[in-house]
Amino acid sequence: MREQHLRPSPISATVDFEADGVQHGFLRLPYSRDDSAWGSVMIPITVIKNGEGPTALLTGGNHGDEYEGPIALFDLALKLDPAEVRGRVIIVPAMNYPAFLAGTRTSPIDKGNMNRSFPGKPDGTVTEKIADYFQRILLPLADIVLDFHSGGRTLDFLPFCAAHILPDKAQEAKAFEFVRAFGAPYSMKMLEIDAVGMYDTAAEDMGKIFITTELGGGGSATALTAAIAKRGVANVLRHAGIIAGEIDAQPTRWLDMPSDDCFAFAEDGGLVEFLFDLGDTVEQDAVIARILPVGRTGAKPFEVRARMSGLLAARHYPGLIKAGDCCAVLAVTV
Amino acid sequence: MREQHLRPSPISATVDFEADGVQHGFLRLPYSRDDSAWGSVMIPITVIKNGEGPTALLTGGNHGDEYEGPIALFDLALKLDPAEVRGRVIIVPAMNYPAFLAGTRTSPIDKGNMNRSFPGKPDGTVTEKIADYFQRILLPLADIVLDFHSGGRTLDFLPFCAAHILPDKAQEAKAFEFVRAFGAPYSMKMLEIDAVGMYDTAAEDMGKIFITTELGGGGSATALTAAIAKRGVANVLRHAGIIAGEIDAQPTRWLDMPSDDCFAFAEDGGLVEFLFDLGDTVEQDAVIARILPVGRTGAKPFEVRARMSGLLAARHYPGLIKAGDCCAVLAVTV
Amino acid sequence: MREQHLRPSPISATVDFEADGVQHGFLRLPYSRDDSAWGSVMIPITVIKNGEGPTALLTGGNHGDEYEGPIALFDLALKLDPAEVRGRVIIVPAMNYPAFLAGTRTSPIDKGNMNRSFPGKPDGTVTEKIADYFQRILLPLADIVLDFHSGGRTLDFLPFCAAHILPDKAQEAKAFEFVRAFGAPYSMKMLEIDAVGMYDTAAEDMGKIFITTELGGGGSATALTAAIAKRGVANVLRHAGIIAGEIDAQPTRWLDMPSDDCFAFAEDGGLVEFLFDLGDTVEQDAVIARILPVGRTGAKPFEVRARMSGLLAARHYPGLIKAGDCCAVLAVTV
Amino acid sequence: MREQHLRPSPISATVDFEADGVQHGFLRLPYSRDDSAWGSVMIPITVIKNGEGPTALLTGGNHGDEYEGPIALFDLALKLDPAEVRGRVIIVPAMNYPAFLAGTRTSPIDKGNMNRSFPGKPDGTVTEKIADYFQRILLPLADIVLDFHSGGRTLDFLPFCAAHILPDKAQEAKAFEFVRAFGAPYSMKMLEIDAVGMYDTAAEDMGKIFITTELGGGGSATALTAAIAKRGVANVLRHAGIIAGEIDAQPTRWLDMPSDDCFAFAEDGGLVEFLFDLGDTVEQDAVIARILPVGRTGAKPFEVRARMSGLLAARHYPGLIKAGDCCAVLAVTV
Amino acid sequence: MREQHLRPSPISATVDFEADGVQHGFLRLPYSRDDSAWGSVMIPITVIKNGEGPTALLTGGNHGDEYEGPIALFDLALKLDPAEVRGRVIIVPAMNYPAFLAGTRTSPIDKGNMNRSFPGKPDGTVTEKIADYFQRILLPLADIVLDFHSGGRTLDFLPFCAAHILPDKAQEAKAFEFVRAFGAPYSMKMLEIDAVGMYDTAAEDMGKIFITTELGGGGSATALTAAIAKRGVANVLRHAGIIAGEIDAQPTRWLDMPSDDCFAFAEDGGLVEFLFDLGDTVEQDAVIARILPVGRTGAKPFEVRARMSGLLAARHYPGLIKAGDCCAVLAVTV
Amino acid sequence: MREQHLRPSPISATVDFEADGVQHGFLRLPYSRDDSAWGSVMIPITVIKNGEGPTALLTGGNHGDEYEGPIALFDLALKLDPAEVRGRVIIVPAMNYPAFLAGTRTSPIDKGNMNRSFPGKPDGTVTEKIADYFQRILLPLADIVLDFHSGGRTLDFLPFCAAHILPDKAQEAKAFEFVRAFGAPYSMKMLEIDAVGMYDTAAEDMGKIFITTELGGGGSATALTAAIAKRGVANVLRHAGIIAGEIDAQPTRWLDMPSDDCFAFAEDGGLVEFLFDLGDTVEQDAVIARILPVGRTGAKPFEVRARMSGLLAARHYPGLIKAGDCCAVLAVTV
Repeated sequence: MREQHLRPSPISATVDFEADGVQHGFLRLPYSRDDSAWGSVMIPITVIKNGEGPTALLTGGNHGDEYEGPIALFDLALKLDPAEVRGRVIIVPAMNYPAFLAGTRTSPIDKGNMNRSFPGKPDGTVTEKIADYFQRILLPLADIVLDFHSGGRTLDFLPFCAAHILPDKAQEAKAFEFVRAFGAPYSMKMLEIDAVGMYDTAAEDMGKIFITTELGGGGSATALTAAIAKRGVANVLRHAGIIAGEIDAQPTRWLDMPSDDCFAFAEDGGLVEFLFDLGDTVEQDAVIARILPVGRTGAKPFEVRARMSGLLAARHYPGLIKAGDCCAVLAVTV
Repeated sequence: MREQHLRPSPISATVDFEADGVQHGFLRLPYSRDDSAWGSVMIPITVIKNGEGPTALLTGGNHGDEYEGPIALFDLALKLDPAEVRGRVIIVPAMNYPAFLAGTRTSPIDKGNMNRSFPGKPDGTVTEKIADYFQRILLPLADIVLDFHSGGRTLDFLPFCAAHILPDKAQEAKAFEFVRAFGAPYSMKMLEIDAVGMYDTAAEDMGKIFITTELGGGGSATALTAAIAKRGVANVLRHAGIIAGEIDAQPTRWLDMPSDDCFAFAEDGGLVEFLFDLGDTVEQDAVIARILPVGRTGAKPFEVRARMSGLLAARHYPGLIKAGDCCAVLAVTV
Repeated sequence: MREQHLRPSPISATVDFEADGVQHGFLRLPYSRDDSAWGSVMIPITVIKNGEGPTALLTGGNHGDEYEGPIALFDLALKLDPAEVRGRVIIVPAMNYPAFLAGTRTSPIDKGNMNRSFPGKPDGTVTEKIADYFQRILLPLADIVLDFHSGGRTLDFLPFCAAHILPDKAQEAKAFEFVRAFGAPYSMKMLEIDAVGMYDTAAEDMGKIFITTELGGGGSATALTAAIAKRGVANVLRHAGIIAGEIDAQPTRWLDMPSDDCFAFAEDGGLVEFLFDLGDTVEQDAVIARILPVGRTGAKPFEVRARMSGLLAARHYPGLIKAGDCCAVLAVTV
Repeated sequence: MREQHLRPSPISATVDFEADGVQHGFLRLPYSRDDSAWGSVMIPITVIKNGEGPTALLTGGNHGDEYEGPIALFDLALKLDPAEVRGRVIIVPAMNYPAFLAGTRTSPIDKGNMNRSFPGKPDGTVTEKIADYFQRILLPLADIVLDFHSGGRTLDFLPFCAAHILPDKAQEAKAFEFVRAFGAPYSMKMLEIDAVGMYDTAAEDMGKIFITTELGGGGSATALTAAIAKRGVANVLRHAGIIAGEIDAQPTRWLDMPSDDCFAFAEDGGLVEFLFDLGDTVEQDAVIARILPVGRTGAKPFEVRARMSGLLAARHYPGLIKAGDCCAVLAVTV
Repeated sequence: MREQHLRPSPISATVDFEADGVQHGFLRLPYSRDDSAWGSVMIPITVIKNGEGPTALLTGGNHGDEYEGPIALFDLALKLDPAEVRGRVIIVPAMNYPAFLAGTRTSPIDKGNMNRSFPGKPDGTVTEKIADYFQRILLPLADIVLDFHSGGRTLDFLPFCAAHILPDKAQEAKAFEFVRAFGAPYSMKMLEIDAVGMYDTAAEDMGKIFITTELGGGGSATALTAAIAKRGVANVLRHAGIIAGEIDAQPTRWLDMPSDDCFAFAEDGGLVEFLFDLGDTVEQDAVIARILPVGRTGAKPFEVRARMSGLLAARHYPGLIKAGDCCAVLAVTV
Repeated sequence: MREQHLRPSPISATVDFEADGVQHGFLRLPYSRDDSAWGSVMIPITVIKNGEGPTALLTGGNHGDEYEGPIALFDLALKLDPAEVRGRVIIVPAMNYPAFLAGTRTSPIDKGNMNRSFPGKPDGTVTEKIADYFQRILLPLADIVLDFHSGGRTLDFLPFCAAHILPDKAQEAKAFEFVRAFGAPYSMKMLEIDAVGMYDTAAEDMGKIFITTELGGGGSATALTAAIAKRGVANVLRHAGIIAGEIDAQPTRWLDMPSDDCFAFAEDGGLVEFLFDLGDTVEQDAVIARILPVGRTGAKPFEVRARMSGLLAARHYPGLIKAGDCCAVLAVTV
């Protein structure tokens, strides 16, 4: 076992995962630095427990600029009454807390991308230490894991909930039942090509039910997307039997990304003009977006064309685009 | 006359404003700095002229993170055929060009907010030198001025075209005819409390017809908002008689911001959850948004309430908000 | 009158200076910037008023890294009961609020040194706008002004309260009575050579009673220096008749800085070793400090010598010193 | 042996450790970077040797913002006459030399905390390369190691000399004899919970006598604390028999930190007001410090309470504090 | 085999290395970051192939501030007609492309020095990922490798082409034939003391013919040095038989750097005055350069003396020098 | 008189301009800032005086990245024996001393370009305060002013000495006699179009003899260019009669820049390849340089062509060029 050779995590929790009731506390990670020799990163955590039952681990802020998850989870932590609960709900509204406070995808401390840092290291960077704590302490406590994502400041997505195609088909089937329960406007079956370092993979490799979302983006949340997140997490807890009541069922469209042709990249930078909006149908070879050169007027734009037909499922968000940026993602309905 | 005592502008144009045909060139502003002792800022400009007729001065990028204007104007500069024109069209797609290249509201060189820098100074900052060139060279050439704005990276607006309430009612009436011709989904009559330093005021004080827009925001543009901008500028040129053809008429809703009660400010920072989206109707005293404290879970959110009833016309865009930020703007239909 | 030609201040107060009772509010200064197009600086202010009587204007954080004033004033704002008050107390615990939040002497926004920014400008920098608000709105409301200073991160002082030698001897005498009432361990009569731009001068030129302090430094406060500040402000309010009760009288030593020979400057940078501590007596020509060259071992230190005999009243605080830094200040007892 | 598989250190010394006399030189560490392709870090070192005898390795600047050690050691390097010496004294006044030049705890090059970088790596970061040189070259030369620390810019300590509780009780006893000889006002027996990466541990694991200090802090040194350091190092050399003469014996109070209850952390940020100063006695449950919220006046402060009774042995230094910072450390006398 | 255990490279090429003709494309390296969640580094590459024959791998921009190589290679990529080619030419004008765009020696992303990053890592930093791609994909395709260097912004060199003294004398001999063919004004036989991490070593260890250059420096290129590079690369392709025609033969002087005495380092920083220029003959003990202290006038300069006689082959370039910088390099003619 | 209304300069000199002998001292400019509340800028100055006679004011470092002047002047300050002098020599080797220490054209404190800051302001920025001191204190003391320039980090020049075409032909003639005496390889008659803010103009307007130089560039100095500067300043002092002895006469070629056609600007950024070197003859319409696009291989370069025939007198120095940079300057021999 890899874990047994590792140092203990430097993180200590101010909550007791085994105690009944509501506890609001912190994961305290010592972090010595120029502006605080004996400072710490204090990651807010809530544990709500009531007797026996399954454990749901609910996380947002895996990337720090994605807001539907943190909104739904700070709200849930505030409102969920332990009397309503059977089992345990562990809520970490902002996993990569330094990134969340900075409003950035990655940690301002070490540029760590939390979702490429698993299984983490107890003696690594701040981001790796947090990942290690989830790997060795929190994930083992969980039965069902819901990790919220959105597009962040640089991407915008159609709102969907998703799970992965997995080798263990029973595990996969259970996950997709949770996706259905979540009830986002869109739902997706994802096949991860390069799953190394992901929180998703860490959870799935332990046999946990893992579901995730993309619920908008651009570094903001709307009333609409926040409501999807809040309803979704309640539905997930209902489906898990942790809270009682009927699932607030919603229609959903199932999407698939069949190949690399889904992705359209920019080979040149400039001012991007989209000719389609999210949810629009794009025919193969159509110009999805034009990239206008900004160095002078009168210069011919670069065209970004669809390599397959599909729905515009995600797009580059900022008004300027750089060479190498993913400009658009298409998906097909299934 | 103030101008006669000023030094000549250090900016030189590589285009001839009196020549017929299409010219793509630059406003060259010498800018000596550590990384280029004899460097310049090169602001793209297009002049399209055909015989006698009115002059339209079309500008975008007054704030560098607002994209509908630059998209419509780089596109127009590329496509407009002088044979279609009667009179002159002067296009500067990105007035505050250093800000536009940086994707920021203000200039990265001097933090200059172009729309608070008029009438500018020939021996001032880079932003002030650009303002001075518009004040003394470009505005005097124009009959009709269209300046595109959007919300930028930190605000999001319902799309509208607008003009100001003016002391000269004939000038005002003509401006609102152009607003109607523009054909945005919303239109607004604005009363500027503090108009000092604005490009708008500079143009209006010279007796020019001046119209402006807010066409979305968040530091991006959609296919929808870019199309509004492109259609609007064509309608404006048609209404001015500079290009021929029927105006592509569109329905519009007229809005008004009757008092300071339109504005709702955040007194505390945190994670903002909007309970309404743009265009939604909000009753007086309703909670428009909640600001969730991010230092710990379980803390009570701050509420931002409506001080009047109205439509949600603009909102703070990023997911985090700081104390003092304008959270929401309401407007009433007229 | 200079003021009548100026624009109105862009700052609006959320408190009513004429209302009885306690009000905690803000001076809201609109500040448009890249990360908040419609943002503001929100400077906390408290007004405590009860009927007729004199007005005391109490300020800290004129320099943002000086802490005794803010501690005493945030505490006073929290605790002072309007029932105890006769007249009015206006408390601004952190004048240069952006600097205070950053823990720096000057504003991180514009590098403005508040105490060199008076009389300010309504259309200037953020720091100048705050100065202008004090100049035109707050100072005219006041009878007695107490402005707290300490050494900040880069200087350390013996704790003293002070007032200026003034042309108006009646005004001067009243000020020194307040200095005596304050009751710091040391008291000083200051003759300002270059008083241009100071808040002190702005207040004194209006005929206000103005006193100030230096209460330690190094970018921190001790329990001892905070207690001096808290006792001092209470004594000042008692002496003014704004709150009732006996002055908590304290012994004080009067200091004087008779000439430029008080100051000892470093002509070379390095690691500074003081041979005397604050309050020690230094004879003329004695080596106050040695500056050890840090580029190599075995190099001869530079010596900083006393140009007069006196008490060590202030010293450079950080362990490293730069050429041109004031190393030490001597004072004589009177 | 781990070492035999490692590359040789890239560091070369310009001094000969085996030569008699005084040598002032450098540890030269090649460091290729954007502003010097063939640059180096030049760490000052002095070797003073006279015939046979023990070797003392004396270091300061392990953290770059702690000044008593560098003052005492630059001074000693300048003054120590080899004729007075029996054996060898190796002096490195600033181990983490880039951090020392920057006045920061960690290296500005790689953010390396020297005291968490042992045993280092010859092909690692600059900080790791320095650690590796101490690990493989300098520590093996030493019999007694004295490493100076203080609180740095963000902590302040009662002045003490210390050694560790060790498994080898003979080694431990010798170390505490040196602590007694040092003669600081306070002395401490430390039990390191997490000793991984420390210079202390590296030395102790080789069987060396290792003592260390905390001699004040706040990013400065006083005449008093510098004198403690200078006297202490002389006493240590006398106790080791390297220089002759009587130890300048001083009274000391022995302190102990019996449990984690010694530490009091801040859970919220703000303006910190200490109610006790260093050396004061604090009863269990007493409020050690109050943290005043800075976002508005009139808000209730957070209280930091003592979890045990004891002497205030260390405190957070800067006037502002962040959530997660260690606010205070208590110790008991033994 | 080390390679078989590694993950596949995350880099994908948009060119087909086996197709005949000219292809201009990219090495696309996914790089998720705050300003582009799904961004990439796009490294330009050209493949020119015509039937069977040897493969030359031509690289510039190994360090990003060295320009002769990129000039010669962007030019060659533009001009080389596949009809002229027998075999294959793979051109990467800027290996460390992020560094090249920034005009810096190392990568602005990770501070990676490409020539100390081999063999790289597929899951390492951006620089290590690029190195890994060369190690595992491009170098195996090559028969002859030419890697252009110059002095960069901080060094200036006499223009030379070079190869290494190698254990395999046949390989070494072939390399020196290519050096002779290149035809730089100077040629050098280099013995690398510390070859760890170098691209050179990676290529040579695979048995490839590897030659390199130093062709000037200072962060610029002259018409003269660019012409040397352009002629040299053509000569190399001719010598390899990849393009036809006579070698444009040039006289060259062979240089040797016999020992560490070649290098003269600065022990103090300041303003550097060279007393010799590149190519000048310097006698042993002569003052090569004086370092003028800049803190005050009238201070004695430090002298940098020659430790051997020779030609001044390289020098520190910027006008200021820091302690530890290599000031001058001497070479002898052979 | 403008000056009489101004505040006194805040700068104090530690030298006595009227005392005979050599004095090395400082211009001390108080500069309060975050890292030193009572800090100063200490600008080195030397005064060498011997009885009656003319005063020469010698300056370097007007731009901080130009090194021939500082080398010649730190050297002269060190070596010039007052016994050799008749009259007075005032030497300021680095006028914009903060810029000089940073190795940048402009001041790192305020981005001030010293040569666009005259006449300065006593209450302005640091750069303006220095300019004001020269304007009101130093220039009035001088008869002859020599101000050294070179190309700095971003330009490279043929080495020349120059003076301006002036309305006062007697003043002009005397200046050109000094240019001839200086004895640079090239000499130039300059007609300044926009002389506002220049030190040159400030001196000339007072009737002083003012000469200047451009002696190379690229942010470095060679043995050759430093020797030109050292010989030139000695020749100037001889010609002025301040030191005795024959002028070390040198051949020079006179250059003229007849019109704006001398300047060739880059309209696009990229990698610049010069086809001519400094001193080469370029025919009208010839391609002086090619700008290679760096975004992809195979893209057509932009050409920078000569608008007149002439000698290449100056060029952009760094390997990359930005749109708007001056690429090349041609001059004609006269």
